[in-house]
Amino acid sequence: METTAQILELSYALDTFYFLLSGALVMWMAAGFTMLESGMVRSKNTVEILVKNIGLFSIACIMYLLVGYNIMYGDSASSIIPTLSFLVSGDNSVEAVIAGGEDAPYYSDLSDFFFQVVFVATAMSIISGAVAERMKLWSFFLFAVVMCAVIYPVQGYWSWGEGFLDDLGYSDYAGSGIVHMAGAAAALAGVLLLGARKGKYGPDGSINAIPGANMPLATLGVFVLWLGWFGFNGGSELKISDVESANAVAQVFANTNIAAAGGVVAALIFNRLVLGKADLTMALNGALAGLVSITAGPDTPTMFQALIIGSAGGVIAVLSILGLDRLRIDDPVGAISVHGTAGIFGVLAVLWTNPDATLSAQLIGLAVIFAWVFGVSLLVWGLIKLAMGIRISEEEEYGGMDQTECGMEAYPEF
Amino acid sequence: METTAQILELSYALDTFYFLLSGALVMWMAAGFTMLESGMVRSKNTVEILVKNIGLFSIACIMYLLVGYNIMYGDSASSIIPTLSFLVSGDNSVEAVIAGGEDAPYYSDLSDFFFQVVFVATAMSIISGAVAERMKLWSFFLFAVVMCAVIYPVQGYWSWGEGFLDDLGYSDYAGSGIVHMAGAAAALAGVLLLGARKGKYGPDGSINAIPGANMPLATLGVFVLWLGWFGFNGGSELKISDVESANAVAQVFANTNIAAAGGVVAALIFNRLVLGKADLTMALNGALAGLVSITAGPDTPTMFQALIIGSAGGVIAVLSILGLDRLRIDDPVGAISVHGTAGIFGVLAVLWTNPDATLSAQLIGLAVIFAWVFGVSLLVWGLIKLAMGIRISEEEEYGGMDQTECGMEAYPEF
Amino acid sequence: METTAQILELSYALDTFYFLLSGALVMWMAAGFTMLESGMVRSKNTVEILVKNIGLFSIACIMYLLVGYNIMYGDSASSIIPTLSFLVSGDNSVEAVIAGGEDAPYYSDLSDFFFQVVFVATAMSIISGAVAERMKLWSFFLFAVVMCAVIYPVQGYWSWGEGFLDDLGYSDYAGSGIVHMAGAAAALAGVLLLGARKGKYGPDGSINAIPGANMPLATLGVFVLWLGWFGFNGGSELKISDVESANAVAQVFANTNIAAAGGVVAALIFNRLVLGKADLTMALNGALAGLVSITAGPDTPTMFQALIIGSAGGVIAVLSILGLDRLRIDDPVGAISVHGTAGIFGVLAVLWTNPDATLSAQLIGLAVIFAWVFGVSLLVWGLIKLAMGIRISEEEEYGGMDQTECGMEAYPEF
Repeated sequence: METTAQILELSYALDTFYFLLSGALVMWMAAGFTMLESGMVRSKNTVEILVKNIGLFSIACIMYLLVGYNIMYGDSASSIIPTLSFLVSGDNSVEAVIAGGEDAPYYSDLSDFFFQVVFVATAMSIISGAVAERMKLWSFFLFAVVMCAVIYPVQGYWSWGEGFLDDLGYSDYAGSGIVHMAGAAAALAGVLLLGARKGKYGPDGSINAIPGANMPLATLGVFVLWLGWFGFNGGSELKISDVESANAVAQVFANTNIAAAGGVVAALIFNRLVLGKADLTMALNGALAGLVSITAGPDTPTMFQALIIGSAGGVIAVLSILGLDRLRIDDPVGAISVHGTAGIFGVLAVLWTNPDATLSAQLIGLAVIFAWVFGVSLLVWGLIKLAMGIRISEEEEYGGMDQTECGMEAYPEF
Repeated sequence: METTAQILELSYALDTFYFLLSGALVMWMAAGFTMLESGMVRSKNTVEILVKNIGLFSIACIMYLLVGYNIMYGDSASSIIPTLSFLVSGDNSVEAVIAGGEDAPYYSDLSDFFFQVVFVATAMSIISGAVAERMKLWSFFLFAVVMCAVIYPVQGYWSWGEGFLDDLGYSDYAGSGIVHMAGAAAALAGVLLLGARKGKYGPDGSINAIPGANMPLATLGVFVLWLGWFGFNGGSELKISDVESANAVAQVFANTNIAAAGGVVAALIFNRLVLGKADLTMALNGALAGLVSITAGPDTPTMFQALIIGSAGGVIAVLSILGLDRLRIDDPVGAISVHGTAGIFGVLAVLWTNPDATLSAQLIGLAVIFAWVFGVSLLVWGLIKLAMGIRISEEEEYGGMDQTECGMEAYPEF
Repeated sequence: METTAQILELSYALDTFYFLLSGALVMWMAAGFTMLESGMVRSKNTVEILVKNIGLFSIACIMYLLVGYNIMYGDSASSIIPTLSFLVSGDNSVEAVIAGGEDAPYYSDLSDFFFQVVFVATAMSIISGAVAERMKLWSFFLFAVVMCAVIYPVQGYWSWGEGFLDDLGYSDYAGSGIVHMAGAAAALAGVLLLGARKGKYGPDGSINAIPGANMPLATLGVFVLWLGWFGFNGGSELKISDVESANAVAQVFANTNIAAAGGVVAALIFNRLVLGKADLTMALNGALAGLVSITAGPDTPTMFQALIIGSAGGVIAVLSILGLDRLRIDDPVGAISVHGTAGIFGVLAVLWTNPDATLSAQLIGLAVIFAWVFGVSLLVWGLIKLAMGIRISEEEEYGGMDQTECGMEAYPEF
C-alpha cells in the first residue's frame, strides 16, 4: 500500500518535472521570436520590436492568469459559451494523488498553468512579426490584452477545453491550428487594416525586398524556436511516466526534429531550382514551416512520414510567401505563411497518419478557429484604430520607430 | 524490501537529474549576463567585457572547487567562523541511499556541487556589469579569485551553510540577498573606488546617457536570464520527488515567471507615464528586478501576490537607477539597482507571504550580508588598487579597452 | 509483481526523458556552432555560413535516418564491415520492458535515435568552420551527405556499434575521437585540397590575422556549446535511473564544466604570458578544447584531475592553432586544433584516470579513426572537386560569398 503511494508520488513528480521543463522550453521560444523578428526588420525599427516582444510575452502571462486560463479550462455547462472560473488557487493534495485511479491528478495544477500560459504567448508572438515596422506600439499592446484574455482562450476552450470542437473530433495535438493558425489569423486581420510598409509595393506593381538588418540574429531565432519546439510538441503528450507515454514523447521529439530538417532542405532545394540562390530566409522559414506542419500530429507518423510532412510544409510556406506578396499583403517576417498556411496544411496532414481524424472535423475546426479569431480580431483592431489609431505617421515610418516610440537606437554606433 | 530500495534509487536519480538540469540552466545565466553586458557597453569595450565574463565564470568554478565550497558547506564548530573542509571527493554509496530515513542522502553530492558552483558565478557576473568600461581586466580577475574563494562563501556559510543567520531564521529561498544583493554590494564597493566613466557626469551636474552598442544582444541576455532563473529558483527547492516538493517547484516556476512579467509591464507603464517613452532598457531591467524580487521567496506567494511583488520590484529598480545617477554612482548596466535594491526589497517582501519570516531576521540578514560583503570587498578592491591599480588610463578609456587589453575589436568591419 | 512492473515503467520513462533532454541539448549545439562560425568569419561570408550550418544540420538528420543509423547500429556478422539494417520502425513494447532483466530495454528506441542523430550533426558542424569563406556551398552539402550517411557511421560502428575497436578496448566515452577528431580529420582533408583564404599567408611568409566580424556572437556560440555539452557528455552515460548511474551523470556534468573552465583560464594565462594580451578567441577556443579533452573520459577523473585535463587541453589547442598557421593550414575558426588536436589529447588522457584503458587500444583507435575518416574524406572531397569544384572563384572570394551564393547580405545596413 505504502509502496503504491510512493510510486504514485514519484510518477506525479516526474510528470510535473517534464511539464515544467517543457514549459520552460516554450517560454524560451519567446526569445526565438524576438531574435527572428529583430533580425528581419530594419535597424531603425529594432528597439521597438524588442520592446514589443518582451512586452507581449509579459502581457500574455498576466492576462492569461487573470482571465484567459479561467475561460479556456473553466467549468461551463455549454460546449460553446465558456464561463469564467477561478482556477489558479491551490494545488493537488497528496491524498488525491495517492488515491490513484482514473480521476486522480497525476501532475501539478500549477505546472499545467505554466505550460499553458507560454502557448498563448507563442500565438501572440506570431502576430508581432507580421505587423512589424508600422504598427503603433501601444495599440499592439492593447490588442495583446484582448487576444490573450479572450480571443485565444475562447477557441482554446472549444478544442482543448473540451468544448464542441473536441466533441466533434477535431484533432490538433499541439496546435497547428489552435495556436499557429490562430495567431496567423489575428495577424492577417491586423495586416489588412494596417496596409503595407511604405516602399514595399511600387505603384507600377513591383515588389521590393526590404532586407532585415541582422541575419545571424534571425538564424539564432530559428534555432531557439527549433529547440523550444521540443517543449511545445514534446510536452503536449501531457504525460511521460509510463512506457507508452514515454515512447510517444520520444516519437514526438524525433518527428518534430526531422520535420524541421525536411522543411529546411525542401525550401533550400526549391529555391535553388526556382530562384537559383540558397536563400537564407527561405531556409529559416522552411524550418519553421516544417515545425508548424508537424505540430498538429507529431504522435502518429513514422519519421519517414514526418520528413515528408515537414518537407511539404517547407515548400508550401515558400509558395505562400511568394503568393501573399503578389496579393500585396505585407508580412515582414513571413509569419502568416509560416504559421497560417503551414498550420492549415498541418491540420489536414493529420488525416494521412491518424485514423481517428476525419476530414470534416479537421475542416470544421479550421473554419471555426479562423472565423472566430479573424472576425473578432478584425473587430478589435478596428475599434483600436478608431479609438487611438494603429498605424504610425509617415514621418515616423521614414525616421524609424525606435526614436519616436522608444527614444533610443538599437545600434547607435554603426 | 527490494521494492523500497528500487523506489529510493529512482527517487535519488530523479532528484539528481532535477538538480543537474537546474544547475545547467543557472550555468546558462552566464551567457545571459554576457549578452546583456556586451549589448549595454560601447563597441570599443565589447571584447573586454566578453573576456571578463567567460573568464569570471571559469575563475568562479575553479576557486569554488578549490576553496569556496569547502568553506560554505564545511563542518565548523562555530556558527560564525567557518572552517575549510575537503568536501568534493566521492559520492553517496548505494547502501547509504537505500537505507532510507531522514538522514539518507537523496541526491548526488556532485550534483549539489554543480548546482552551488553556478550560483557563485552568478554573484560574480553581477559585478562585471557595474564596473564595465573602466576597470582593468586583470585587477577584476584578481578580485574574482577572492570573491569566489572567500567573500561569497563565508556569508553563504552563515545562511545556507547552517551558520548563525540560518539559526536566526533569516529566510532567503534562492538568494535575493545571499546572491544578488551580495553581488551588488561587492559591485558598489568597486564602483565607489573606481569612479564614473569619463563623460558620464558633466561638470555642470548633467547626466549623460551612454547608449549601449547592441540592443538585440542585451534583450537576448534578459531572455536567457529569464530562462535560467527557472533553474536558479526552481532548483532551490532541492527536491522534487514527492507530491509536496513537486507542487512547490511548480509554484516556484509559475511565480518566477509571473514576477518577471510583472516587472516588465510595471517598468514599461511607469516609464510611459513619467518619461513618455517605451524605454527598452527599463523594460529589461524591470524583468530582471521582478526576478530578483521574487527570488527570496517564490515558494509562498500565490501567483497574484508574485505578480505584485515582481511589479513593485520593477518600479523600485527603475527608481533606484534614476536615484543612483543623481548620486553620480555610475553603473553602466544598472546592476546595483536591479540586484541590490530589488534584492533588498525581495528579502523584505518575504514577510508578506511567509509567516515563518520575521522582520528582525530579514533586516539582520541583510545588514550582516551587506556589511560583510561591502566591507571586505572595499578592502580587497583597495588593496588591489594599491598593488596594481584598478582603473585604466584616460587614453585607454577614450580609445577603448579592446585594443589595449585584448588586442582586437568586437566588430572590426563596422 | 504489479509494483515491480510500475517501477520498471517509471525507470524507463525517466531514462527516456533524460535521453531526450540530453539530445535536445546536443541539438542546441548546432546553434552554438552557427553563432561561433558566423562571428568568426567576415561579414561578406556570413549569410553563407548561416545557410551552411542550418543546412548541414538538416542534411545530417535526414541522411542518418535514411542510412547512417542503420549502418552504425546494424546487426552485422562482421566486426569490420557493417551491414545496412532497418532500425527505425516501432518502439519497445510494454511487455518487453516489464519483463525486466539484463536484456530488457530500459529506454525508448526513438529517444536513442534522437540522441545519436545530433552527434553526427556535431561532427559535421566541426567541418563547416574549417572550410569557411572559400568552399562552394553545394559541394559542401554534397560532402555532408556522404559524411553523415557513410563515413561517420562506419567508424561509429567500429567503436560504439560493437565493432572491432570496441572489442579491442578502445575507450572513448562521448567521442573525443569518434566525434570530434573524426570531424577534424574530415575538415583537414577538405582544407588541404581547398587551400588557404586569399591574403591569409603572404608570399613573404607572413601570417595575417583575418578578424571575425562579430565577437559577441562568437562568444555566445561558445556558451551555447558549453551548455549543450552537458547533454553531449551527460547523456552518454545512457542511463540515470539508479544511484550509480545518477552519480556517474553528476560526475560527468561537474567534470565537463570544470574542464571547460580550466581550458579558459589556462588559455588566458598562456596568452597573457606569451603574447601579452587577453585574447578572446583563444579564451573561447580554450573553453572548447577543455570540453573536447574531457569528452573521452569524463566519468573517471576527480574534478581536480578534470581541471588539469581541461587546462592542458586549452594550452594544447592554442599551441596547435599557432602551429597550423606556421604550416600554412588555414582554419578560420581553429576547428582542427580544438576538435582534432585536443581530441587526440583527450583520448590519450583517458589513460591517466581509467585503469581499463590501454595505450595500445587508444592509439589504435585514434589511428584507425583518423585513417578512415581522413582517407575517405580526401577521396570524396577529391571526387567532388573533379565533378563540380570545391573552391569559389577569386572574384567571389573578394566580393564575398553572400552575394553570389545566397543573393543577400548579413548586415545590409552597416
